[in-house]
Amino acid sequence: MKLVRYGRPGKEKPGLIDEEGKLRDLSGVIADIDGAQLSDKALRKLAKLDEKTLPLVRGNPRFGVPLAKVGKFIGIGLNYADHAAEAGMAIPAEPIVFMKAITCLNGPDDNVVLPKGSKKTDWEVELGVVIGTRAQYVSEEDALKYVAGYCVVNDISERSFQLERGGQWDKGKGCDTFGPVGPWLVTRDEVIDEQDLDLYLEVNGKRMQTGNTQTMIFTVAQIVSYLSQFMTLEPGDIIATGTPPGVGQGRKPQRFLKKGDSLRLGIAGLGEQQQDVVAWTA
Amino acid sequence: MKLVRYGRPGKEKPGLIDEEGKLRDLSGVIADIDGAQLSDKALRKLAKLDEKTLPLVRGNPRFGVPLAKVGKFIGIGLNYADHAAEAGMAIPAEPIVFMKAITCLNGPDDNVVLPKGSKKTDWEVELGVVIGTRAQYVSEEDALKYVAGYCVVNDISERSFQLERGGQWDKGKGCDTFGPVGPWLVTRDEVIDEQDLDLYLEVNGKRMQTGNTQTMIFTVAQIVSYLSQFMTLEPGDIIATGTPPGVGQGRKPQRFLKKGDSLRLGIAGLGEQQQDVVAWTA
Repeated sequence: MKLVRYGRPGKEKPGLIDEEGKLRDLSGVIADIDGAQLSDKALRKLAKLDEKTLPLVRGNPRFGVPLAKVGKFIGIGLNYADHAAEAGMAIPAEPIVFMKAITCLNGPDDNVVLPKGSKKTDWEVELGVVIGTRAQYVSEEDALKYVAGYCVVNDISERSFQLERGGQWDKGKGCDTFGPVGPWLVTRDEVIDEQDLDLYLEVNGKRMQTGNTQTMIFTVAQIVSYLSQFMTLEPGDIIATGTPPGVGQGRKPQRFLKKGDSLRLGIAGLGEQQQDVVAWTA
Repeated sequence: MKLVRYGRPGKEKPGLIDEEGKLRDLSGVIADIDGAQLSDKALRKLAKLDEKTLPLVRGNPRFGVPLAKVGKFIGIGLNYADHAAEAGMAIPAEPIVFMKAITCLNGPDDNVVLPKGSKKTDWEVELGVVIGTRAQYVSEEDALKYVAGYCVVNDISERSFQLERGGQWDKGKGCDTFGPVGPWLVTRDEVIDEQDLDLYLEVNGKRMQTGNTQTMIFTVAQIVSYLSQFMTLEPGDIIATGTPPGVGQGRKPQRFLKKGDSLRLGIAGLGEQQQDVVAWTA
């Protein structure tokens, strides 16, 4: 299934994208899409619906983040060897873990707002992993059973806040609007091989990032297992699994986002995001 | 007011500690204590109650985290000059910001669980700041108006996970049970000077940390203002503002927590926590 949440910010309704690519309303069936709806059992129940009986949604409503009540938004750093090289950093011996403030969550096509004083806001297309079942000390072998599905994440990062303002990356990873997620939450049964997904990102129509999850240093299963050694993963937690090469910081000359830029990014089978970049206004 | 949540984990009821130090039930007045109850207006309404009309609670129930639905749990690193020295780290030029996973939140007297493989779990008594009003780009001058109140936080940290496993501190800051908060959320009107509060922590009855918020490098007002430049602070967010000297890592020889240890820690006017340290079991 391709689960979505559509409508105005804060007023989103649950829905799904049917086999013909049409948006259908789920609000007669479930109140919302959140951790409680993401267990294997709850997803099987939804999958049994005859989607043709669900109301078609007219028009082209906005998409929100495809799940509500996200508890944790965890990031993995430097998880593609080529990206580590362009960032001038060593290939990590074990996953680098950081956190994105949940207030940065943003609809997939909502504006990206440059924070006040930003000079180095950068893009990062990433495979997002959504947890479906509580995971604590799970093995790599079992890890994917705890995954509800996958989505596109743009792990937007202000490089000077992240790297030049003292200390920890989180300072540049969680600014408001820095976490576009969606459009779809694609359940794991529809993703044949999570380690063979093409990713891409364009700025103003120019291709900047091209990658495939084959070149991840740590696989999705390894990441889920690893994180579960350090914290309990709860249904509805999102993990951004790192970005392939082609970020603005790694270009020569470096290229960061400015007001008026537009972003287009996606992952094969998981849909596409489009964002306009705007300046912060009170 | 001294607001509390009492009862079994996940079933806590709201309450308050009256002028005689007795626990009274608030569940007839509000459903719970969370961000929605922490605005100045909502707190003024609660303050108008005649506390003598609220039911007394018998016995000695467990205390939970004194607020529910915490969105973000933010930490400030090395914010006492003496602690930076004992950690062998430079005094930061601006606040070091990290995040604690919200799954680490724990009642003030609940057991602290050593994660599997932990060899360097350490204590950190800290002044916790609870946000009451949405804060975005607020000035230092205005910052305290956005604070609902204060509480004791034990910012428990696994030093090897934090510092020796590659990358970012978050890996050692958010393990389950690593965030005891409470017992009370003391509203800001009751805290005469947040920059003159004594803090202490004992391990097995032996004093380990002694400090006062006077020696913070960055004040509460500076921290709230600073953070609000990087992310919107929402009602119910908690900020742990750094620890004074005396952590286990800074002792000679180093001393880390082991099964059977007991912790007692507190801040003048904000109450006291007591924790037993246990090993992880499935």
